Amino acid sequence: MKLKRTLLASAMASLALFPFASSAMEKADLMITDAMVLTMNQDKTVYESGTVVVKDNKIIAVGDASLEKQYQAKQVLDVDGDIVMPGLINTHTHVSMTVFRSLADDVPDRLHRYIFPLEKKLVSRDMVRIGANLGNVEMVKGGVTTYADMYYFEDEVAKTVDKIGMRAILGETVIKFPVADAANAEEGIKYALNFIEEYKDHPRITPAFAPHAPYTNTTEILQKISKLSLELDVPVMIHLAESHREEEKIAERSDGLSPVQYMDSIGALNKNLVGAHMILVDDHDIELVKKSDMGVAHNMSANIKSAKGVSPALKMYDENVRIGLGTDGPMSGNTLSTIDEFNQVAKVHKLVNKDRAAMPPIKVIDMATMGAAKALHMEDKIGSLEAGKLADIIVIDTKAPNMVPVYNPYSALVYSANSGNVRHSIVDGKIIMQDRDMLTVDEDKIRQEALDFTKVVRETVIESGEVVQ
Amino acid sequence: MKLKRTLLASAMASLALFPFASSAMEKADLMITDAMVLTMNQDKTVYESGTVVVKDNKIIAVGDASLEKQYQAKQVLDVDGDIVMPGLINTHTHVSMTVFRSLADDVPDRLHRYIFPLEKKLVSRDMVRIGANLGNVEMVKGGVTTYADMYYFEDEVAKTVDKIGMRAILGETVIKFPVADAANAEEGIKYALNFIEEYKDHPRITPAFAPHAPYTNTTEILQKISKLSLELDVPVMIHLAESHREEEKIAERSDGLSPVQYMDSIGALNKNLVGAHMILVDDHDIELVKKSDMGVAHNMSANIKSAKGVSPALKMYDENVRIGLGTDGPMSGNTLSTIDEFNQVAKVHKLVNKDRAAMPPIKVIDMATMGAAKALHMEDKIGSLEAGKLADIIVIDTKAPNMVPVYNPYSALVYSANSGNVRHSIVDGKIIMQDRDMLTVDEDKIRQEALDFTKVVRETVIESGEVVQ
Repeated sequence: MKLKRTLLASAMASLALFPFASSAMEKADLMITDAMVLTMNQDKTVYESGTVVVKDNKIIAVGDASLEKQYQAKQVLDVDGDIVMPGLINTHTHVSMTVFRSLADDVPDRLHRYIFPLEKKLVSRDMVRIGANLGNVEMVKGGVTTYADMYYFEDEVAKTVDKIGMRAILGETVIKFPVADAANAEEGIKYALNFIEEYKDHPRITPAFAPHAPYTNTTEILQKISKLSLELDVPVMIHLAESHREEEKIAERSDGLSPVQYMDSIGALNKNLVGAHMILVDDHDIELVKKSDMGVAHNMSANIKSAKGVSPALKMYDENVRIGLGTDGPMSGNTLSTIDEFNQVAKVHKLVNKDRAAMPPIKVIDMATMGAAKALHMEDKIGSLEAGKLADIIVIDTKAPNMVPVYNPYSALVYSANSGNVRHSIVDGKIIMQDRDMLTVDEDKIRQEALDFTKVVRETVIESGEVVQ
Repeated sequence: MKLKRTLLASAMASLALFPFASSAMEKADLMITDAMVLTMNQDKTVYESGTVVVKDNKIIAVGDASLEKQYQAKQVLDVDGDIVMPGLINTHTHVSMTVFRSLADDVPDRLHRYIFPLEKKLVSRDMVRIGANLGNVEMVKGGVTTYADMYYFEDEVAKTVDKIGMRAILGETVIKFPVADAANAEEGIKYALNFIEEYKDHPRITPAFAPHAPYTNTTEILQKISKLSLELDVPVMIHLAESHREEEKIAERSDGLSPVQYMDSIGALNKNLVGAHMILVDDHDIELVKKSDMGVAHNMSANIKSAKGVSPALKMYDENVRIGLGTDGPMSGNTLSTIDEFNQVAKVHKLVNKDRAAMPPIKVIDMATMGAAKALHMEDKIGSLEAGKLADIIVIDTKAPNMVPVYNPYSALVYSANSGNVRHSIVDGKIIMQDRDMLTVDEDKIRQEALDFTKVVRETVIESGEVVQ
């Protein structure tokens, strides 16, 4: 605790009231100075010695050092040349599953043989809260400021997101078999509707439907959700074109259609949909995706861990599909910040395209920020550092030895950075992590709660005959 | 600086003189307690609540908590359940190239079009020292305690290794065209011989020959180096079976032999050889590699970044080839600790083998420790935590949110850990990094020297017509 307080004190020392403010200066709340600003705007403008100005929860100016003379800010955060960029957006996860991380990672047919039975025994309101708290801390410390979640008891996840101060799209699962918070899909829809009603006006939380996958729901349920989502104007998140099992089941149901074609044929492919994975898609599928204006979550690291293959994500990106990076859940990814996956995303696409110039760093960073914002249809609010956007901003340490030197900031971020290099995370104009210290939640307490819960998991995994390892 | 001193003070507080020592107790220098010890011995023994005891520069006991009653140590390091494992061994890098990191990462035919011209202009004693100092710090902070280097002015690298307290095999480059420290291959051999003479008795440094590659040296030179290495009993490190350009050049020279077959045919494939990359090897080549008892450095992350392909490293490992992980140089990898590549190594082998059970975490950790020690023919000295071995030990933080929980320590290390999770690094019985603070070198000064040098690099890259970006 002594260390922690000292870190805080040291961090606070770099925040100072702006000393000599002229009356002609515009008022602001926070000004980040001496920053290598990657705006990720349309022109990919970079300010080598730049400034970002925040008022309330919005960015009001981004530019060079001359902005320091135009604004009088309550707080000045001099970042000494560090990289300042939009907060990362994780387009797909199951945050509460952190409490299961490192269990049975390489079991064949794992979802059906291991994860579903495990969840049947252990998913509860408590588990969801405990796991989400841990995952939220991991994401904030890894520079993720917004995430899209699909799980159960999403109202519990919402409380944790509200508390820590992140931004999230939270999708309540709908699935045809009995789960912890619903006996069937109809009950899942009811749960989701209540959740949507409760959170529809929250400034940082967007409630959503999350039908698990096409093959784990009936056509009728998928159509009902699609209709409701358009009426209520809420997102629908789904695992789509992920596995051969899914392909086979959907082909049986639909006279040989691919999962994407099937979703289109039942009228469920539309602008409110976010499809996670999208590995098994061909050119015709991609055409349908573009036409529908749906979003895509690309989870490279989880996809190759399960040997499912590599999504044609680069092709989709190049064809202007709304596509961004996601981590998948912590039993899949296994970490929750896309910064730890930049490297893989770049390199595996180079490998499969047999071209070292394929998937250059700037595209990876775009898919982690603006691309991800587009995938979630939030590009008017987040994803770049531009005046008028919400102030979701991260600062990356450029002094860590792995980050020295920075001739090209995109290369440094993609080929060298890891989540430990994130110094500060700002969401909605509020600093929620500073010099790696969490300011809105008690990290030690959250970790201890998670560790306590692992005792229950250990007992269950060992006792249960259903959970095969 | 205030922060740094406080961190040190806090760290020192966890070291205490063992208070009530009975005279029957054996004396030791350092005892690591309350550790999740991964020994990486033959049986892969794990002590959930274990102890490692060090005297002078060696491990004298590894076991459960009962060892605490048998030894009286000058220092006790209570690691509160963290993972304790053998120091990582990086089997292949070019450490001094840190000063060029993030330059022109994705240029086609980069070695010949970019790197060789850049090196011709900028490699010097100063550059080698400055870059090595930075890379050493990065490696120690990433848990690497031993590395194998191939570059120029290796006597300068040796001084930096000696100072920081790491262990290294340092290979002086021999190449047929003029380079910074030699006009031709014969001069390179002379330089290497002087270096070998100077360092042959150093306790932590093994001097070596580093012929750049088969196609950048003549047959005569390769044979001469092979003969000298056997006479002097020093290693030979070489880039081997790395590229199609190499394959073509060697096939022309040798009537269609593969690079491995060619090296065998000229008598240069033997137990002193360490081949880096070994991407383009077939079953026959692997047979020759096994028969020769040579070592192999597997550099997954660099190999896929350049789209060169994936080495059949898993097959070689399964067939008991001496094979370990390497990062390649910081213009290639781009980071220098294999811990940041564990994830990729596991997952890319799963992808190419279309099998999620392929390359399980325990094999990755084995290739990073004992496998790497075997590749460098140092398995009697390092690579595992066993009584009698040199005390090269690292401690991994299990409290960072990305590392919680640890049901399976190998999974946690491979799928979750990054270099920022390394807490302490111990080499030759001496703690050289503690709670991420460097104890033997001045990290700030080293970073500043590197940053100063980047100004020279920027000027050269911009001015030069030869260096194509």
